Amino acid sequence: MKCEVIAVGTELLLGDVVDTNSSYIGSQLAMSGIDSHFQVKVGDNLERITECISTAAQRSDFIIMCGGLGPTQDDITRNAVAEVMGVPLVRHPELVEKIQAVFAGREMTDNNLVQADLPEGATAIPVMGGTAPGFVCEFKNAADESIVLYAVPGVPWEMMEMMDWVTEDMRKRSGFSGVIKSCILKTWGLPEAELAELLAEEIERLDSESEAGSHDNSASATLAFLASGWEGLKVRITAKADSEAEAIKILQHEEAAVRKILPDELIFGKDEETMETVVLELCKKQGLKLAVAESLTGGLISSRLTAVAGSSDVFLGGVVSYAKDVKVAVLGADPEKLAVSQETASAMAKGAISKLGADCSLAVTGVAGPDPLEGVEPGTIWIASVLDGECETVNIKFPFDRERTRQFTVITALNMFRTRLLKKMST
Amino acid sequence: MKCEVIAVGTELLLGDVVDTNSSYIGSQLAMSGIDSHFQVKVGDNLERITECISTAAQRSDFIIMCGGLGPTQDDITRNAVAEVMGVPLVRHPELVEKIQAVFAGREMTDNNLVQADLPEGATAIPVMGGTAPGFVCEFKNAADESIVLYAVPGVPWEMMEMMDWVTEDMRKRSGFSGVIKSCILKTWGLPEAELAELLAEEIERLDSESEAGSHDNSASATLAFLASGWEGLKVRITAKADSEAEAIKILQHEEAAVRKILPDELIFGKDEETMETVVLELCKKQGLKLAVAESLTGGLISSRLTAVAGSSDVFLGGVVSYAKDVKVAVLGADPEKLAVSQETASAMAKGAISKLGADCSLAVTGVAGPDPLEGVEPGTIWIASVLDGECETVNIKFPFDRERTRQFTVITALNMFRTRLLKKMST
Repeated sequence: MKCEVIAVGTELLLGDVVDTNSSYIGSQLAMSGIDSHFQVKVGDNLERITECISTAAQRSDFIIMCGGLGPTQDDITRNAVAEVMGVPLVRHPELVEKIQAVFAGREMTDNNLVQADLPEGATAIPVMGGTAPGFVCEFKNAADESIVLYAVPGVPWEMMEMMDWVTEDMRKRSGFSGVIKSCILKTWGLPEAELAELLAEEIERLDSESEAGSHDNSASATLAFLASGWEGLKVRITAKADSEAEAIKILQHEEAAVRKILPDELIFGKDEETMETVVLELCKKQGLKLAVAESLTGGLISSRLTAVAGSSDVFLGGVVSYAKDVKVAVLGADPEKLAVSQETASAMAKGAISKLGADCSLAVTGVAGPDPLEGVEPGTIWIASVLDGECETVNIKFPFDRERTRQFTVITALNMFRTRLLKKMST
Repeated sequence: MKCEVIAVGTELLLGDVVDTNSSYIGSQLAMSGIDSHFQVKVGDNLERITECISTAAQRSDFIIMCGGLGPTQDDITRNAVAEVMGVPLVRHPELVEKIQAVFAGREMTDNNLVQADLPEGATAIPVMGGTAPGFVCEFKNAADESIVLYAVPGVPWEMMEMMDWVTEDMRKRSGFSGVIKSCILKTWGLPEAELAELLAEEIERLDSESEAGSHDNSASATLAFLASGWEGLKVRITAKADSEAEAIKILQHEEAAVRKILPDELIFGKDEETMETVVLELCKKQGLKLAVAESLTGGLISSRLTAVAGSSDVFLGGVVSYAKDVKVAVLGADPEKLAVSQETASAMAKGAISKLGADCSLAVTGVAGPDPLEGVEPGTIWIASVLDGECETVNIKFPFDRERTRQFTVITALNMFRTRLLKKMST
């Protein structure tokens, strides 16, 4: 079963808006076991939209159209679909009511009512987040084959609300009963080439298992690497089976196999976990209050920690000691030492403990660039952490530009602290 | 002249990677006066890539292919183009040398040499950022029309390096001599509907001017609104004329017209300026040192300010007083007052001045949510700033989720401070 995605909107072609919707839909299709071989962006032009639908109808079984369902004159997806189907648009009274209900009491301009017009024969998708109903319809392509088309809104969260229903409907129609489960293991510390080498044998083993069993669609697992910039490398494990229970079992088995192969501390988290949620969790387990002292990262570490709901259970706060004077006056650093040095990093970490009343702390000082600081080269970083009264420091040299240096420092510092907390837990 | 963009890569269809390349290429085409009506994503499959090229060749004059030029067996763009052209691949010795030079001294696996293979008749693009050369070639479509195809790498910065050359080449070939210049005015404070209303007359005036002169391709200007989430609303002014000098003149004239129509403080910056670069610039002009005290924003304000190169001329640092105790102990807030109150915000702003030795300060305290804090509802924000020894406060209520509340607070606080600094400058 193949599904083509058509994203409608001139702003997409102009690059004013990046097409994240197709990417989301594509990942949802993949998770539902449905292939997507083509994804197209087209502008708010009736002729070209109908051309895209016709092209898609010749080569795909399903079509998902995203965008162009709003109330303005640029919103012509409904019209294009009706034209391809050779039917008129029909106003649905129950949808008129729903739209009016969304505006409940507020003023509603009449043009909003066009959103209640569906191509004759189409049904509204029974999930509605905003004012634009999505719809599903069936029609025949030029070769008289039956094509199913779904139209969903271009507003990301409105589209996401509908996608579960859409993929479920596609699965019912295509008789695809298999279950796909996946998890993502997040790693930090090894480059992709080395990670791939460590897992090469396992990937080969899974490949040959899959080939051996593929003719009867039996259960299988695959590994994939996803780079995520300064968030590290992700290993996605995907398990496919006939039942949910079986898929979960295969997934857990494969996860255990991967964890056995990779060095203990390489995997810092899974799925929704981030370096900061993991650090906060480790502190929370040990009843520790955390404070941070930042220089070049300028608040990034604190802001990532505080982005986590419930971080106040652990995180007391921090000092952004950007100017050297502030390192001295607020954190007690020695003005005779270099701003970027082991001594200053240690003083900052200890200062964070005493000033904020914390149990443990993390401090970073470094030269983001592009210029040297007090003669110290850009990319030079000192990270210090205090735990159980003991201060440990690490010196790093990054070859990056200013922003990458800041971002890599954040995750490296959090990771260093994570491994310290893990070591403490295991002793 | 129409250009179709084909982004090659299975990871794009799976949603593992968002297609930002097509968006960038689309915006570059728009700036070069070249229309793009279709942009397609296709996977690493020879048959489907050739199908996309053939489809594009029927409906567009130019094709830009992005991705699939690397050294692995999945990189088959070269092969697909050669197949459509009906020619073999030819290894270019000068490209072999270039590739070897990139690896200079380091080990280079042989597969990298396939990047020196171009379809017979194609020429390498004379700009090369990484190891994959791009190429340009001409061929006839099914209707015997001449089509020009450019193939560029999928690595974003490598593609961006080549795009100036590509658009320049397209312009030469299409005889398009017009010049397009644009600028972006960044606004904060009015919703899009109101902004559109204020500029409605001007947009209408430009539209009728454009219609009147369109038959002889004379100079024109257009306005467009671009939403950018919590960065505000952007008004993009685009001027088109026969010469660069004329285009710049039209642009400046239109910018002045827009600035005259919009309220003085609505436009906070232009093009690369951000709320924080503007605030830092205003402080710098007045020789002021700035410190920040943050609670719910947890370091976001500091990190945005420190992301700006040269911010150390102005920014001393800040305190992230996430826990109430830290507001009290470090900044001198009154423990008897609510953490989220006018009194605490003022104390935080004054504390930042005295503890960090600053001339001016900005402080925010609020309830990010999802739970209330000391009985204060989520979305309740107090912003305080100290300037010339005087403290001003503002109370805001946001209806957003946790992360949006944090982000909107950042820009609202910076904007409040910006207007204070502007007022000071004009007195």
